[in-house]
Amino acid sequence: MAEAALLACDWGTTTLRAWTLDADGGVIDHREFDVGVSRLAPGEAAERFRDTVRPAFGAETLPAILCGMIGSNLGWTVAPYADCPAGLDDLARCLMAVEPGVRIIPGMRSVGLAGAPDVMRGEETQLMGWLAADPARRRGRRVICHPGTHAKWMLLENGRLVRFVTAMTGELFAVLGRHSVLKSDAPAGDEAAFAEGLAAAGDGDALAARLFTARSRVVGGRKPAESTPSYLSGLLIGAEVAATPRLLGLVGDEPVTLLGDAALCALYETALTRRGIPHETFDGEAAAVAGLYALHQLGRAS
Amino acid sequence: MAEAALLACDWGTTTLRAWTLDADGGVIDHREFDVGVSRLAPGEAAERFRDTVRPAFGAETLPAILCGMIGSNLGWTVAPYADCPAGLDDLARCLMAVEPGVRIIPGMRSVGLAGAPDVMRGEETQLMGWLAADPARRRGRRVICHPGTHAKWMLLENGRLVRFVTAMTGELFAVLGRHSVLKSDAPAGDEAAFAEGLAAAGDGDALAARLFTARSRVVGGRKPAESTPSYLSGLLIGAEVAATPRLLGLVGDEPVTLLGDAALCALYETALTRRGIPHETFDGEAAAVAGLYALHQLGRAS
Repeated sequence: MAEAALLACDWGTTTLRAWTLDADGGVIDHREFDVGVSRLAPGEAAERFRDTVRPAFGAETLPAILCGMIGSNLGWTVAPYADCPAGLDDLARCLMAVEPGVRIIPGMRSVGLAGAPDVMRGEETQLMGWLAADPARRRGRRVICHPGTHAKWMLLENGRLVRFVTAMTGELFAVLGRHSVLKSDAPAGDEAAFAEGLAAAGDGDALAARLFTARSRVVGGRKPAESTPSYLSGLLIGAEVAATPRLLGLVGDEPVTLLGDAALCALYETALTRRGIPHETFDGEAAAVAGLYALHQLGRAS
Repeated sequence: MAEAALLACDWGTTTLRAWTLDADGGVIDHREFDVGVSRLAPGEAAERFRDTVRPAFGAETLPAILCGMIGSNLGWTVAPYADCPAGLDDLARCLMAVEPGVRIIPGMRSVGLAGAPDVMRGEETQLMGWLAADPARRRGRRVICHPGTHAKWMLLENGRLVRFVTAMTGELFAVLGRHSVLKSDAPAGDEAAFAEGLAAAGDGDALAARLFTARSRVVGGRKPAESTPSYLSGLLIGAEVAATPRLLGLVGDEPVTLLGDAALCALYETALTRRGIPHETFDGEAAAVAGLYALHQLGRAS
């Protein structure tokens, strides 16, 4: 077995995912820990990292690199956002050492909508991993979508992230499905209802009105209430896919690269296909590992 | 004091509001009861009306007319929706007698978005009351907005409701303010933050992305978290006002008549003024009383 050369961590709000990598970035071991930053007491991160994470791998002295919410005010220490535009080299220059051998990748900040800056922590590392994997990706203009609770739509130009915008799609789905007149305990997965929701999304305008169709199709249209979660998912993802690219200054039919969880990306693939938008999908976890490794390498060299 | 000639009730989900009216429709007495249909056991409505509501007015034998959710499957009995297009006379022909001297005004149904019918129960009576109060209102094309948990946008042509659409604006505000990353215990009422939200609403597209600005303006833009409810209110109302008229097939800058709660209408007035849309406002409760009276009179004559 290859020797471990790096302890790479994606330390998010609910979970810490960690990998030991060899000198070429290959994965040796992988573990998950139930110590997301939302579960940490102030000042607890360093201790948990030393007493729980490192010993689990027998990696007490390995160099480590961390990304995600661990760089926020809930985490280990605040790693100030790196501003757009920035590419791999720019971000690698912003790594923040929190103790000898442990560095945090900062989140990124963009000029956002309505004058408020937009922010991300963690997705930038996946983006950089995807970029690092193939030099051809660093040429031209590209649109990347990272689906999730707070989906990120990113505009890349020649390998640099120039702008991004966040859509609260996943959170709207969760909150409406639990607490509104659209609440339901039924599982999603009804493909016909999902497609119906995509069609009802229209151009992504007037969402508050389109959402009511998830109610009226049941009370006035005799559709089964169990199909509401799938319909709602289609409506929200359809509206996001239709409207968000325009906020980046795009026409809206540029090819889209999906980066993230495979099951969630599959829903976006269906939404993009329906609109005739070319797309390709890459695994977010593999991209995270690649980004942690690439930024560690570049950061060490700089 | 004039003699009571009619017991008029707006019997909604959470509250029953009742008035005794004289033979000319003037209000003699008004009471509210904590017996909204969501609090009624199946079959309980008739009993509560006889044992609680009538005795409170000493109105055991007065003719009565009811509107609202009391005509739904949660209420007294289901009064089938009257379909658009319909005006005062049409609706008056659809009153449903549930026992001698007690009639329910049905809700209305419209061809809605995405093929699902849209529905209302209660707002149609306010609309008809507003129409009945002035024959001039029954000429030409008019756009009426009834703000609320489920806001109704109604298109009138020559005194008939031809189409309407529901926007879940009030429910989005409540659910996001209680259960999402935007939750806050702070009161609304910050006029500057409300105006900021109106500006951030843009054309009402890409709402999931625009909503995230309510978060990023605080975490990235150093705006006070206490201003979030007012900002969110402005954003949601601004998006509704910008986008919903187009769903009725309108250009979007037609004059709007607001009908409803005065405080809520005042927020919509600000939103409409900002977009340069002429508007006028009428009290929803007065319109409900007028509608109950007018439909009783017309229904009796027909």
